[in-house]
Amino acid sequence: MSSPPVIRAARPEDADDILQLIIDLAVYEKEPDAVKATPELLRKNLFGETPYAHALLAFPSAEAKKPVGLALYFFNYSTWTGRPGLYLEDLYVSPESRNTGLGKALFGALGRVARERNCARLDWSVLKWNAPSIAFYENTLRATQMSEWVGMRLDEEGIASLEKFALKSD
Amino acid sequence: MSSPPVIRAARPEDADDILQLIIDLAVYEKEPDAVKATPELLRKNLFGETPYAHALLAFPSAEAKKPVGLALYFFNYSTWTGRPGLYLEDLYVSPESRNTGLGKALFGALGRVARERNCARLDWSVLKWNAPSIAFYENTLRATQMSEWVGMRLDEEGIASLEKFALKSD
Repeated sequence: MSSPPVIRAARPEDADDILQLIIDLAVYEKEPDAVKATPELLRKNLFGETPYAHALLAFPSAEAKKPVGLALYFFNYSTWTGRPGLYLEDLYVSPESRNTGLGKALFGALGRVARERNCARLDWSVLKWNAPSIAFYENTLRATQMSEWVGMRLDEEGIASLEKFALKSD
Repeated sequence: MSSPPVIRAARPEDADDILQLIIDLAVYEKEPDAVKATPELLRKNLFGETPYAHALLAFPSAEAKKPVGLALYFFNYSTWTGRPGLYLEDLYVSPESRNTGLGKALFGALGRVARERNCARLDWSVLKWNAPSIAFYENTLRATQMSEWVGMRLDEEGIASLEKFALKSD
């Protein structure tokens, strides 16, 4: 009988495995060439001087060498609640490990992190065509769709073009 | 002739003024009772040991005592870019100070922060009914609507209920 699954916080030496799971997720999201992250960027931005994000890894058993699930998150802030929140940037479980409870277990572990940090909310985004995930989020997790809001984005070029609006005196 | 407007980073002693602008924004967003933040929570979470967010304040002139504009932001992280991003949580300019360039000037100052931190993106959300703001974001800032995504949310009760999914061994 194999040992039960394990979830643990990611460490710097996991950077290659994290990247592979990120690439697998991008392929599932139909954007296989979208990933510009590298192991070096992940090590710097997750484990460096200024950690911008954190990751949990899921293993099918205590003996497994390779993670089959990833939850990558950071803390945000709501001015309405006045408190931090947990934002789940990426959640992924490999196809061969789905329906084994690892997705739920990752959410269970995220809930514990959120409570430790006194978070008022747990937020994430989902592609509207991803009906199986939305059904899981609504029916199993009882999450609410924030359908009255739409995200806006500027890329690097857009950020550079904001310079023309900056005050001369700043 | 009065001096030109000023934008500067918020300080702990600005907590009362920040809260007033947050409340004014909530009234504009038709949720006057939604604000649970207090000056103490703002001081702790913006200027404490773990700063979850940061704020810029806009003043109509160098002599003005009270800020009339606020940009509150934090850093997020994209696994696709591998780099941090700037997320603008709240942007507000008092009605009597609109159309004086302060909104644009706040975006100019945010662009500088984003470039200093090597951010790949500047993201924010807008209520879908807020057509004047969306027009400004799209036409003046050239921002893109992320309309293929929808946000999902669990509140504090929802976070607590995740405990039932946590692995016994963790």
